[in-house]
Order: sequence, then C-alpha cells, then structure tokens
Amino acid sequence: MEHTARILLDLLMMFAAAKIMGEIFERIKQPAVVGEILAGILLGPYIFGLISPSQTETFHVYQVLAEIGVIILLFSTGLHIRVEEILSVGRTSSMVAVLGVILPFFFGYLFTLTSEHSTVEALFIGAAMVATSVGITARVFADLGILDSRVAKVILGAAVIDDILGLLVLAVVTGVGKGAISYLKIALITLEATGFIFFLIIIGKKLIYRMAPTFGFLKSRNAPFALAVLFCLGLSAVASYIDLAAIVGAFMAGMVLAELNVEFKLSMRFESLYDFLVPFFFVVMGTQVDLTVFTRFNLIGAALILTAFAILGKLIGCGLGAFNLGWKEGSVVGVGMVPRGEVGMIVASIGLGMGVISTDLYSIVIFMVVATTLLTPPFLAKMISKGFVKKEEERKVEQRVEDLPVDL
Amino acid sequence: MEHTARILLDLLMMFAAAKIMGEIFERIKQPAVVGEILAGILLGPYIFGLISPSQTETFHVYQVLAEIGVIILLFSTGLHIRVEEILSVGRTSSMVAVLGVILPFFFGYLFTLTSEHSTVEALFIGAAMVATSVGITARVFADLGILDSRVAKVILGAAVIDDILGLLVLAVVTGVGKGAISYLKIALITLEATGFIFFLIIIGKKLIYRMAPTFGFLKSRNAPFALAVLFCLGLSAVASYIDLAAIVGAFMAGMVLAELNVEFKLSMRFESLYDFLVPFFFVVMGTQVDLTVFTRFNLIGAALILTAFAILGKLIGCGLGAFNLGWKEGSVVGVGMVPRGEVGMIVASIGLGMGVISTDLYSIVIFMVVATTLLTPPFLAKMISKGFVKKEEERKVEQRVEDLPVDL
Repeated sequence: MEHTARILLDLLMMFAAAKIMGEIFERIKQPAVVGEILAGILLGPYIFGLISPSQTETFHVYQVLAEIGVIILLFSTGLHIRVEEILSVGRTSSMVAVLGVILPFFFGYLFTLTSEHSTVEALFIGAAMVATSVGITARVFADLGILDSRVAKVILGAAVIDDILGLLVLAVVTGVGKGAISYLKIALITLEATGFIFFLIIIGKKLIYRMAPTFGFLKSRNAPFALAVLFCLGLSAVASYIDLAAIVGAFMAGMVLAELNVEFKLSMRFESLYDFLVPFFFVVMGTQVDLTVFTRFNLIGAALILTAFAILGKLIGCGLGAFNLGWKEGSVVGVGMVPRGEVGMIVASIGLGMGVISTDLYSIVIFMVVATTLLTPPFLAKMISKGFVKKEEERKVEQRVEDLPVDL
Repeated sequence: MEHTARILLDLLMMFAAAKIMGEIFERIKQPAVVGEILAGILLGPYIFGLISPSQTETFHVYQVLAEIGVIILLFSTGLHIRVEEILSVGRTSSMVAVLGVILPFFFGYLFTLTSEHSTVEALFIGAAMVATSVGITARVFADLGILDSRVAKVILGAAVIDDILGLLVLAVVTGVGKGAISYLKIALITLEATGFIFFLIIIGKKLIYRMAPTFGFLKSRNAPFALAVLFCLGLSAVASYIDLAAIVGAFMAGMVLAELNVEFKLSMRFESLYDFLVPFFFVVMGTQVDLTVFTRFNLIGAALILTAFAILGKLIGCGLGAFNLGWKEGSVVGVGMVPRGEVGMIVASIGLGMGVISTDLYSIVIFMVVATTLLTPPFLAKMISKGFVKKEEERKVEQRVEDLPVDL
C-alpha cells in the first residue's frame, strides 16, 4: 500500500504542478508548456527534490507515462493533417529538413574542432545538434490553434525527415567512434525508415478506407477510439523497433487517420487522454534537467556559444529551406525547428558511454538542449501573435485573389 | 529504444487482446469484462507467455497503469451517485456490509479449522474471504447502464464500509499472527478510515460548491477535467496513505463531484481516459492468475468447497442485509458482492509471508478469488437481463403510485 500511495502522491504533485505553472504562464501570456517544464525542474532533484530520477524503479513508471503522453501528443497532432497536405509542402519540408541537419552539424563540428577537441568528439557534438524535438512546437501550435497552417505542415513534415536523417548521422558517427562504419547497417536503416514512411503514405489511405466500415460494425462501446488507439500504439511500436522515434510512428498513424477525424470525432475522443498524459511528458522532461550544468562557470561560455550555434544552425538552415514561404513564415519555421530535446541528450550520452566525448562536452550539450527547448516557445508565441503565420483560411482567400485574371 | 519498443508492443498486445476478447464476449451476450480478464490469462505466463509478471521492472509499469485504470473506473462510478443517494440507502448498505463480512469470515474460519489447520490459519483464511472487489460489479453495472439503480447504490455504499471492516479484520488477524494485537493501531485505523469518509460526506459537498466557480475562472484548457483529476488523485493518495484501498478514495472523490457532473459534463470528459486505462486493469489482473492452482488435483476438492463457501457467505450475508429491497434486488446485491479480487490475494500473501499459512491454503485462496471473479459477471448480467433490477425511473413511478391516497 505504501508504494501505491507514494506513486499516487507523485502523480498528484506532477499533475498539480503542471497545471498551476501552466495556468501562471498562460496568465503572463507565455506558452503553458514552458510552465510545465519549469514545474518539472521545480519538483526535480535540484530544487525541491520531490521527484527524483535516481529512484529508478518508480521513475521508470513516470518515464513510460511521459512516453505514452508524447505519443498521444504527436498522434493528436497528426489527426489534424492529411497525408496530401504534408505532400503538398513536401519539397519545402525536405529542404527544411536537409539544410536544418547540415548546418547545425557543421556548426557543432567546427565549434568542437576549433576548441581543441578530437575529430570524433566533433562528430558526436555535430550529431547531437541535428535532431529537432518536435513535441514542443507541436504543443505550442496546438495551444494556439494553428495546427492547420501551412507552417505547421512544413515543420511536421520536416520533423519526420529530420528524424530519419538524424538516425543516419548517428549510425555514421557511432560507426566512426567504434572505428568501423557498417555500410550495410546504414543501408538497412535507410531502407527500413523510408520504407515505413512511404508504405504508410501510399497504402495508409486505402487501408483506412477499408477499415472505416468496421468502426460502425463493432459492438464494443467507443469502438472508433479503441481502433485508433490500436493503430497509434501499433505504428509507434513498429517505428520504435526500426529505431525511428516512436513519435514518428504516432504522428504517421494520426496523419493516416486524419481522413476519418471529422466523421468519427477522433480528436475529441482523444481530448481527455491528451489532457491527462501530455503534461507528464513535459514535467518528466523538466525533472531530468541537470541544473548543475548552469553552475559550472568555466563551461558557461562554451555552452552559450554552442547554444547560439544550435539556434543559428536551425534558424538559418530551416529558414533558408522554407524561403519560398516568405520571410515571415520562413522565420517561424526556423524558430519552430530550434528545440532539440531528448534526442540530442541521447546522442551525447551514447558518446559519453563509448568514452569518446568528455563529461564537459556532455554537460555543454545538456545546456544547449535545455536552453533551446525553453527559449523557443515564447518566441514562437510572440511571432504568431504578431501575425507571422497566416491561418489556412486567410491564405486560401489570398490565393484565390492572386489566381484571379488580372483584367478583372 | 529497444526497451521503449518492447513496452509499446506489450501495451499494444494487452489493449488489442482486451478489445478482441471483449468484443467476442459481447457477441455471445456475456460481459466484456470477463473477456478482458481472459485476455490477460491468455497473454500471461501459463498460456502464450507474452506478458510475464516475473519481469518485474516492466511489469511494474503495467501494474501502475492498471491501478490508475481501476481508480478512474471507481471515480467514474462515483460520478453517477450523489452523497445523499448513498446515505438514503445507508442502513441497507451497512447491513449488507456487516453481514457480508461476518458470514464469509466464519465460513472461511470454520472450513479451515475443520480441515485440520491451526486457529491462526483459520483466521487468515477467514480474513481473505471478507473483502469484496467492487471493480468487477461496478464495471458490469456501467456496461449495462444501471449505475443509477438502487441496487448499485447499496452495493457501492456497502463496498466502502466493507473495505473499512476488511481493514480492521486484517489488523486483528495479523496481530494474532504476530502474537500481539495492537489495540492502539486498530483504534487508529478505525478513526482514520471513518474520519476520512465522514469528513468527505459532511464537508465534501460544501467544498465542491466553493470550488465550482473556479472551474470557469481558470484559463487552462479543459480546466474542469484537470481539477477533477487532481481531486481524484488527491483522495486516492490520502485513502492509500491511511491504508484504505485507493479506489475507496477515488469513489468518494467521484461521489462528491457528482454534484457537478451534469453541469461540467465530467463523465463525458473522462470517457476516453476510462476506455484507454480500464482494460489494462482487467488484463493485468488476468496475467497474474496462477493457473497451476487448477492443475493440483489434490487441492481441487478443498478449493471448490472454499469457493462455494465464499459465494454462499456473500450471497446469504449480503442478500439478508438487502432483504428489504425484495428477494430479486436482494439477490442481485448478494451476487454483486461475491467477487473477491486482489484484496483476498493480498491477505493470503501476508499470511504466507508471515509463515502462518501453508502454500496449499494460499493456492486454494487464489482459486477462490479467480473463480468468484470470473463467475460473477455472467450471473449478474443474466439477472439484470431478466429484469431483477428496477431502473431508477420505474422505481420512482411505482413509488408515486404507492404514495397516492387510497381513495383516489
């Protein structure tokens, strides 16, 4: 009983802190998601010490809840975007993803090399700069109701490609770290990941139209919800098995089901699951922030420079990639791709585990991840409130006006 | 990644198996909940071996999900029942609870004594016979849409009292097992548990009317849901800390919030959380069923007899307690109180841990728990389909007819 009581109390504290901080941040006109991450930092080991990642068995439970939370977040995001809509911005998304991987990689690589580190270290830091953590941006866009904008589609499409590219970079870099690149492995990863995505894009829609009639055929209560959960968990598991992020699978699942979203009120059916689980993702993220990094004054300088490069890399790279959207929307795409999140940390910790990067460099990466994650939402919210992002309706009206014959 | 993938696959299997088996059971006109438990048994170590309780770290995660599931189940049940409604059947509920504790206890006690076991063993088996696991019955009633019937109120009220009584019995019995009963501890348990319940009954409603305006005052999206979650987790944690079942706290939280259920559409807001989490409770319950008990033929006789006593104890005890509802509704109350569930197992395992009961007796208790849990839902469903339970509207109409002046 003691153990159950402890877990329930922890869940209560995390949920309460998330909601209170979220409410405060909304009142000062800042994104609630930043409040939720700060709630986690406050509860974590360096401030109040109420939730401790070092209590591994219990904390593991919260990590799984958080993982399900971010899966539901990306699934719900996908529900708002149809496959064709992503494909219609496919070229822009690809440009954003590719340039947004190349620039940060080279910035990280060059920064590390010039500060007297080895080539392997430089490669690892470059790799840690690559992967965008799209959860933050998706959440901000959802909260501000612009998930159906062109910018959102470009970013989400780019995030999927970005994840595949990140995977390849990681495979190459760890190969170099071990002293031998396995070209077979890299080919296999490429094949699996792109195969998965293309299979869903091509077959997904047909599959869904076949599935749709069964929704009404089942006797179980809330059957469309249950089928959607199965589809979401299924694709997340597959993505995870082929080493893609589980959230890429969840997003693809949502996107394929977007065809049926209106008919079966899927978004609405997932609302309470979203509101219950998503906060755990951001709070748990917050509890894992190692604040001691900020107190190592000898590192602060280097950490700030790397963070600046991390921001500039995505801002310039992704901004250039989305240049055809105009400078306003292009810069929102650039900012939206800035947050790094857990993938950067994972890459750095692999390097640390292999003994090829120093703990100092590891700490600098953590700093960069935390800073990019916390800085992005306020800027995004500001740009959106200034009207940088055109809503879908506005854009369509303008498009129609432009398309009118000139001699009207 | 491998680890995340494994967990996602497990969750997928559990959810899919629950839904498939639930669907099959609904089609053969049986309660879906039995299908869900059988899904767990199928996935468990004795049939397909896909989910194994012995993989403690991973399984622990599923247990927590299951625990949150049953908390949401009892909270949602509570949302349909106002405090006054439970109080209006308070006397009947108390009789049901008291007689439903005394009879099974003595049946278990006498059965064990007469089969050449010690007094301490007999006391433990008696204690394991006591506690009703109300989740099963609540689920069947919810599925059949009769949560607002008088029978449901009597059973749920009785389950709360039953839990307190079970706690006291356990305290006495473990005291005897250790060789010293702590009267102070027993007094403290009584005080805490009854204090908690009475505090909520008396203060709860006022508290809620004070809270209600804040529901609209908050900026956060879906604020009523968030506040309800906090209230539910909070009371579950408190109940758990004072050694009551967490679900008693969750049920009380739901009941107190029932005042606001209609105004803020709380039941509806919890629907998808319910549909996602509740199946995990029953599937995880299924995976923990030790099927080897059924193969020990030397025990089967004794196990069947104890099961018969377990059923008769509640049927007669609770049936008598609810005699004033008439024999039809009284017998539904009797059947509804039959399932034992996890509490019986916990009592038996405490006895096993203290070395005061034999593994044979432990296995017999497990058999009894599984049998009472699986047998109850079909009987309940049958009785309800035969019209044993009057719906609330019917009862009110009849009441009004009875109340009319005779010389109309």
